[in-house]
Amino acid sequence: MSQFLRPALAALDPYVPGEQPQDKSYIKLNTNENPYPPAPGVMEVITREAVSQLKLYSDPTIAPLKRAIAEQYGLMPENVFVTNGSDEALGFSFQAWADAEHPVTIPDISYGFYKVFAQLFQVSPKVIPLREDFTLPVEKFCGAGSMVVFANPNAPTGIALPLSEVEKIVASNPGHVVLVDEAYVDFGGESAVSLIGRYPNLLVVRTFSKSRSLAGARIGYAMGDPALIDDLERVRNSFHPYNINRLSMLAGVEAMKDTAYFEDCCKKIMATRQRTAEALKALGFTMTESSTNFLFAAPPALSGREYYEQLKDRGVLVRYFGGSRLSPYVRITIGSDEEMDVLLAKTREILKEAKA
Amino acid sequence: MSQFLRPALAALDPYVPGEQPQDKSYIKLNTNENPYPPAPGVMEVITREAVSQLKLYSDPTIAPLKRAIAEQYGLMPENVFVTNGSDEALGFSFQAWADAEHPVTIPDISYGFYKVFAQLFQVSPKVIPLREDFTLPVEKFCGAGSMVVFANPNAPTGIALPLSEVEKIVASNPGHVVLVDEAYVDFGGESAVSLIGRYPNLLVVRTFSKSRSLAGARIGYAMGDPALIDDLERVRNSFHPYNINRLSMLAGVEAMKDTAYFEDCCKKIMATRQRTAEALKALGFTMTESSTNFLFAAPPALSGREYYEQLKDRGVLVRYFGGSRLSPYVRITIGSDEEMDVLLAKTREILKEAKA
Repeated sequence: MSQFLRPALAALDPYVPGEQPQDKSYIKLNTNENPYPPAPGVMEVITREAVSQLKLYSDPTIAPLKRAIAEQYGLMPENVFVTNGSDEALGFSFQAWADAEHPVTIPDISYGFYKVFAQLFQVSPKVIPLREDFTLPVEKFCGAGSMVVFANPNAPTGIALPLSEVEKIVASNPGHVVLVDEAYVDFGGESAVSLIGRYPNLLVVRTFSKSRSLAGARIGYAMGDPALIDDLERVRNSFHPYNINRLSMLAGVEAMKDTAYFEDCCKKIMATRQRTAEALKALGFTMTESSTNFLFAAPPALSGREYYEQLKDRGVLVRYFGGSRLSPYVRITIGSDEEMDVLLAKTREILKEAKA
Repeated sequence: MSQFLRPALAALDPYVPGEQPQDKSYIKLNTNENPYPPAPGVMEVITREAVSQLKLYSDPTIAPLKRAIAEQYGLMPENVFVTNGSDEALGFSFQAWADAEHPVTIPDISYGFYKVFAQLFQVSPKVIPLREDFTLPVEKFCGAGSMVVFANPNAPTGIALPLSEVEKIVASNPGHVVLVDEAYVDFGGESAVSLIGRYPNLLVVRTFSKSRSLAGARIGYAMGDPALIDDLERVRNSFHPYNINRLSMLAGVEAMKDTAYFEDCCKKIMATRQRTAEALKALGFTMTESSTNFLFAAPPALSGREYYEQLKDRGVLVRYFGGSRLSPYVRITIGSDEEMDVLLAKTREILKEAKA
């Protein structure tokens, strides 16, 4: 930290992404990546010619990708905002609608970045604890009196809220933006996109990183009333109007168009999740009901940290968060069937040793 | 704009990028792109396999690209910060070191985005007018009493400041960050990178968009004291730690390593600039001395706007800014020799008609 840093930022507690160790080849089940490659069209569209055209700026209106997303969800391009990863959509949302005088209501256990954005933009978060069973206390988000941000399904718990409950939150906060972060919704949640025409305060945030197999392309998007999108465009155009590079724009269009491939990958991941969850439960694990591409699971006889560490020693990376309520748990990304078989084999070893 | 937008942002006057018309094929000399393709290695490294790996997140430490940049400039990776276009580096710098209580000193005529960042982050800019001949009044930036931001060479004037003058500004502001935006320095300016070891308050910002032929890959970077880089990393990791996508990271490494290709492209552009400047002067144009990949030129017998419009009618796009001091001028990007021949031919037509 330098002597020049603004005092308000000196206390920042930046987000820590899941570890990406370079020293050893791990089975990576710690950052919720998709085990399947991007849609075949992505590999076709990034040609040598497309790469040579990198000499030219990308389209600052992001028109082709906005059109592809709008078509997929039965919306207009005016309902769509595109960002360099969904973190940027979340960050611009905090910047547009919250500040020291305009707080944000968030759950205590959710995507860790919400608290970081609050710090960065000097927003006071109103933090609502999840219930004992990790479900969202919907009534406390109704009539919140501030902007509301939550993930559905939630992370790292994996639990989905029915659309009717999401609608209660949106409908009861007409004077404030309700941001529903649907990063994981394609793996079994109910999307709030269908509510967009009726609620001008609803913003749905999505990502290409999970269900579209494009984590490395960095594409996020938000959908909502054109006036909300206009607010976000105002911030984007005051920060970097060329936020999406040429190749990601091409990749995103192809990934969004190929519905059959997308649905097939999601189905395979949900089947692998089912099989893995059953096997872990049979081994004595406690877990929440996942509507995502990960399991939030607590091993028997070991703490979450011990299990995480022993898996890592055996070449399998999962994510451990810690904190009083989360310490029994780890978050396990659903990889391929083969990867989950390795996870299960290593887990059996670990549990056997723990009992010995 | 929605009813929810923060009042502070309602008055924002976002940056307007150079037009990217989709209706007609223009000779585009309006956004300072490089007419030559990226280094050959860029096309080699973005393989089908690299594209299929987009399913995985990019390296959030951006290690390979930081190393490549550091090696090129004789620095350590700890001296290097990498962003999604240099606008992001500029934006994070405003966010890190300026706010309502910590103003920024900028020139009145320079990259238009500095004023936009000031608005976005509620920073009061102290605006110093350029001299009558568009040179920077160095003495007014010395001991400025605030963070200082300026472009060298400047845009849209193209005028470079000698390194000795840059050093005066840096040395006389030890209590504040001095940000030198060197987007165009490779076309004839003197870089301040050599001063980094001696001045912990100096940040040099660069881009791959101009001299590295990668405008569409969106890569910017900043170089300075490790403590300044640490400040910027703190902001980046509180906003989006995965800001660089996988393919741009690969492209950036190749473009940075290929010094011979890079130097050859810069040389060709400088030769074309020389030839074009002489031809325009022979036609009666007034212009500044350019150390960039563009000319800042005023036609005889027409206003800047008229010349811009008549060129556009003839299929050649240049950039017109307007405003009292800039209205006689347009900014003309240096394209290929063939493109500049078309510009010159169309210009002769326009001047002939204007005289008739």
